Amino acid sequence: MDIGMIGLGRMGANMAERLLRGGHRVHGFDAVEAARDAAKARGIAPAESLQALIAALPSPRAVWLMVPAGAIVDDTIAALRPLLARGDIVIDGGNSRYQDSMRRAESLAADGIRYVDCGTSGGVWGLQEGYSLMLGGDEAAIEALHPILKTLAPSADQGWGRVGPSGAGHFAKMVHNGIEYGLMQAYAEGFAILQRKQDFAFDLHQVAEIWRTGSVVRSWLLDLTADALAKNPTMEGIAPWVSDSGEGRWTVAEAIALDVPAPVITLSLLERLRSRDDDSFADKLLSAMRNQFGGHAVKKE
Amino acid sequence: MDIGMIGLGRMGANMAERLLRGGHRVHGFDAVEAARDAAKARGIAPAESLQALIAALPSPRAVWLMVPAGAIVDDTIAALRPLLARGDIVIDGGNSRYQDSMRRAESLAADGIRYVDCGTSGGVWGLQEGYSLMLGGDEAAIEALHPILKTLAPSADQGWGRVGPSGAGHFAKMVHNGIEYGLMQAYAEGFAILQRKQDFAFDLHQVAEIWRTGSVVRSWLLDLTADALAKNPTMEGIAPWVSDSGEGRWTVAEAIALDVPAPVITLSLLERLRSRDDDSFADKLLSAMRNQFGGHAVKKE
Amino acid sequence: MDIGMIGLGRMGANMAERLLRGGHRVHGFDAVEAARDAAKARGIAPAESLQALIAALPSPRAVWLMVPAGAIVDDTIAALRPLLARGDIVIDGGNSRYQDSMRRAESLAADGIRYVDCGTSGGVWGLQEGYSLMLGGDEAAIEALHPILKTLAPSADQGWGRVGPSGAGHFAKMVHNGIEYGLMQAYAEGFAILQRKQDFAFDLHQVAEIWRTGSVVRSWLLDLTADALAKNPTMEGIAPWVSDSGEGRWTVAEAIALDVPAPVITLSLLERLRSRDDDSFADKLLSAMRNQFGGHAVKKE
Amino acid sequence: MDIGMIGLGRMGANMAERLLRGGHRVHGFDAVEAARDAAKARGIAPAESLQALIAALPSPRAVWLMVPAGAIVDDTIAALRPLLARGDIVIDGGNSRYQDSMRRAESLAADGIRYVDCGTSGGVWGLQEGYSLMLGGDEAAIEALHPILKTLAPSADQGWGRVGPSGAGHFAKMVHNGIEYGLMQAYAEGFAILQRKQDFAFDLHQVAEIWRTGSVVRSWLLDLTADALAKNPTMEGIAPWVSDSGEGRWTVAEAIALDVPAPVITLSLLERLRSRDDDSFADKLLSAMRNQFGGHAVKKE
Repeated sequence: MDIGMIGLGRMGANMAERLLRGGHRVHGFDAVEAARDAAKARGIAPAESLQALIAALPSPRAVWLMVPAGAIVDDTIAALRPLLARGDIVIDGGNSRYQDSMRRAESLAADGIRYVDCGTSGGVWGLQEGYSLMLGGDEAAIEALHPILKTLAPSADQGWGRVGPSGAGHFAKMVHNGIEYGLMQAYAEGFAILQRKQDFAFDLHQVAEIWRTGSVVRSWLLDLTADALAKNPTMEGIAPWVSDSGEGRWTVAEAIALDVPAPVITLSLLERLRSRDDDSFADKLLSAMRNQFGGHAVKKE
Repeated sequence: MDIGMIGLGRMGANMAERLLRGGHRVHGFDAVEAARDAAKARGIAPAESLQALIAALPSPRAVWLMVPAGAIVDDTIAALRPLLARGDIVIDGGNSRYQDSMRRAESLAADGIRYVDCGTSGGVWGLQEGYSLMLGGDEAAIEALHPILKTLAPSADQGWGRVGPSGAGHFAKMVHNGIEYGLMQAYAEGFAILQRKQDFAFDLHQVAEIWRTGSVVRSWLLDLTADALAKNPTMEGIAPWVSDSGEGRWTVAEAIALDVPAPVITLSLLERLRSRDDDSFADKLLSAMRNQFGGHAVKKE
Repeated sequence: MDIGMIGLGRMGANMAERLLRGGHRVHGFDAVEAARDAAKARGIAPAESLQALIAALPSPRAVWLMVPAGAIVDDTIAALRPLLARGDIVIDGGNSRYQDSMRRAESLAADGIRYVDCGTSGGVWGLQEGYSLMLGGDEAAIEALHPILKTLAPSADQGWGRVGPSGAGHFAKMVHNGIEYGLMQAYAEGFAILQRKQDFAFDLHQVAEIWRTGSVVRSWLLDLTADALAKNPTMEGIAPWVSDSGEGRWTVAEAIALDVPAPVITLSLLERLRSRDDDSFADKLLSAMRNQFGGHAVKKE
Repeated sequence: MDIGMIGLGRMGANMAERLLRGGHRVHGFDAVEAARDAAKARGIAPAESLQALIAALPSPRAVWLMVPAGAIVDDTIAALRPLLARGDIVIDGGNSRYQDSMRRAESLAADGIRYVDCGTSGGVWGLQEGYSLMLGGDEAAIEALHPILKTLAPSADQGWGRVGPSGAGHFAKMVHNGIEYGLMQAYAEGFAILQRKQDFAFDLHQVAEIWRTGSVVRSWLLDLTADALAKNPTMEGIAPWVSDSGEGRWTVAEAIALDVPAPVITLSLLERLRSRDDDSFADKLLSAMRNQFGGHAVKKE
């Protein structure tokens, strides 16, 4: 089927390419010229403007947004809105906050435009292995998208599905990412313990490889960890500095709002904050307190 | 090759059967008659005594212990010791504490008996899928075991290996289990958040299935979680009571001893303690404190 | 000086009484008749309506709100606004979210009404011991309130102060409560450890008393804990169920928004959520997972 | 009464001086000459040897150990043992592990020597304010010590007591220190949040002072924190590096051994480990994992 892909960055361009390979007609657009050029080199003919993109799509149109969460999504929708017609479908495949998706779906419904939120997992590997897709929104709209969903997913009947009404797709993706934080932190802590046990001089890559088959902790993240350890067993040159991209925070906030204690997901987020706080005021104050009551020497900077 | 398997419980009997299927001559023993009978029904001819088991093995003998960690391992070794000869190999495939394995290896070395510690992962699925095996000890001893290790493992060249000197195998298994606690807790928290978000009425089994392919959180534990949710989506009849079997505790203690902060693994253990503490004195005292300073009503039992 | 106290509940009535004792003319109002009657019995002559209250106050008026945080504050301000004049001062002494206080201050400033946010700590003991007061807002407005602040505080020059612009008072109180959660949880955990160590049969009240003088952990919360343990050493009849009133949640959210890792404050909140979750889905799922991979029995409900 | 004080370091010399001021005859000893000289300058006449110390004491002798926990305690006891007689009392006022105290008490009992474990809190302030003393051991032995306990404590009837049999004193002190870790961490996090909220430009010392009277979080640790913030409001020159001295670790281990979840005390310890881990392997690996699955850039060292 025909699909318009807005946002041809790392994720969007890969998804466009997977759709092309699957026999779909992909019309692309990116506000950045370099992204359009890069997409063209990969066989995706990008439109020069949103207008041109929409004009190229048959009705009812399906437009997939793959742009950074936040204001850009709202701006893009605002620009699209006058170009679209009743019955058209807009899919937000990015990492939007689920409450935003609920709001957008409701707003566009006033014009008869159908809004589908799609949590998309798979990262840079999705091009080859397919994407895990969690969809929220109108059932008929999602049904109309089945051809492209079956292509984007790992297989026609696996790794994708409508999980609920508007917002449910991004909610599920948010939780997915919260879990991801926890899984990553668990592996990282485990390997850090092995690494510190210098008496045994573990070959961390070997241990990861052994665990990859047969063990209870085998997983795709472990496969990637094994790759990372093969390339750089001592993590040389990599700073102990871990970014976070919003969904972990939202999961923590949502868990608290729902009165669900989620200590491991929460601590995984806090550890990332901690990794970036190399001048901790709290720790300085603790050191000063110990000096106050016990006369313990503080370490000078 | 010939192998003596001591301990024909859930794990030992499965491992014996996998070895039999692989063409090895398996001699079994279990102190419990019912376990011997059950083993016989699966084609493993158990010896009537340790003496008979040892007598049946060609030299140098290989004896695999698959008994509960702790005193039983020491007792079994004490009973075996006079029956064994210089050059024989004892493998402890259970979940022993690594310091115990180091001590046992050193002790048996005085008699020329070679002791191999083998962390074994795979649970009840190992029979079909093979076991992940992390080995510690003498290189030559482990080399002599290669035929059975290749059979027990998922494949001849995957999922097993010598990871270091005596103790290293059980150390790696200990950390493996610590990671496992963290992974399990991360999934459990994530699904609990989904379950509590009643507006979306998630089908938890469906979400697990979607995540199983393509997503960043795909793993074998997620496969099992999907199975569990398929059978019992509401966890009906299951008490919120989670056991722990020692290795999580050891991982926490070891991390602290090594000055490695491992908050997620640690909290995963504490959550299990919490699950079994349904009459928390701490919580009662908190409620009483709030009443003291703020006049807040306590909830009565 | 003259002051109008709106909200004559547990906190408001006590504060009104402390002000009366200090020689101020206190005009009170409460929407609930029973609260008005109770106040009258304590010597506070309550007005029958907001209008009557405002009419009774000399210009520039000072009106202190001691009502539950949230919509009631907005509603009360909306009702007051047309009754007030340029130069009047409204103080919110409740536990409002600091962003709300910033918004309200800005809104009222349009009419020349000065809004002061006052974090108030001290609980039911404040009547006798004085309240700790953290004030945010216009310097001149706060200066005009000095007479009543000096009376409400533990002493004229201790326990109160302007800590910054609008919002800063409630921000400081929010953090105060976050710290309070952490302190309470630390004590509760410690006494729970003592209580569980049955070999030593500790008298928890005695231990608390010993710690109250000379020890590093002496504090007012420990004094209260000692009282609670004196009255009810086994916490008999008290459910292990701990409420939370919003400020802990805000502190956690604010810490994350500021990229400050605050694990102890955060976990203290999560423990309260946990205390109220006696049918944890996460724990049930963990139990089911263990059964899946290891054949471990689940505990039945 | 007469007392022999072994160990004239920061704590021991202060305690000796407080006893002197209280009218007791204090006989001191320290293996380090400089400590003996410093003690002499404070009016404590130190013996030149353990033999001389013991010879100077009337029977039944009371000998107070104030030496670092661990091997030094065992060595000192071994040296004392042949010098002591049936009925003599040895008090360990240091931070020994409670299991060690139980073992030592049992061992010395074979010779009729009475061993008292005394958890001592108060730090460098104890000299002026008195020490909080938690005692474990034989009732009659402790009764014989009442004169010196009443002097060391903040007052004759406050801040000290026998809390149970041998080991109970050090157990209570261990938990005391665990609580202390939690309290300190709670304050440190709170002030770190205030410090990071730059819009409000809080004067942290002022906030601490406000909280010191009337507030729910008032405590002696807060008094000390206020002092530290007065002297150095920005913690300039202090490294974010926090030591730990054993008792936090023991509390965590004990809580787990008793199946008591103590997340806040536990996290407080882990935060200290974290403060000293400025090259976290776990964080590097997390960064590498993110790069693997998402193509996210790692930060270079």
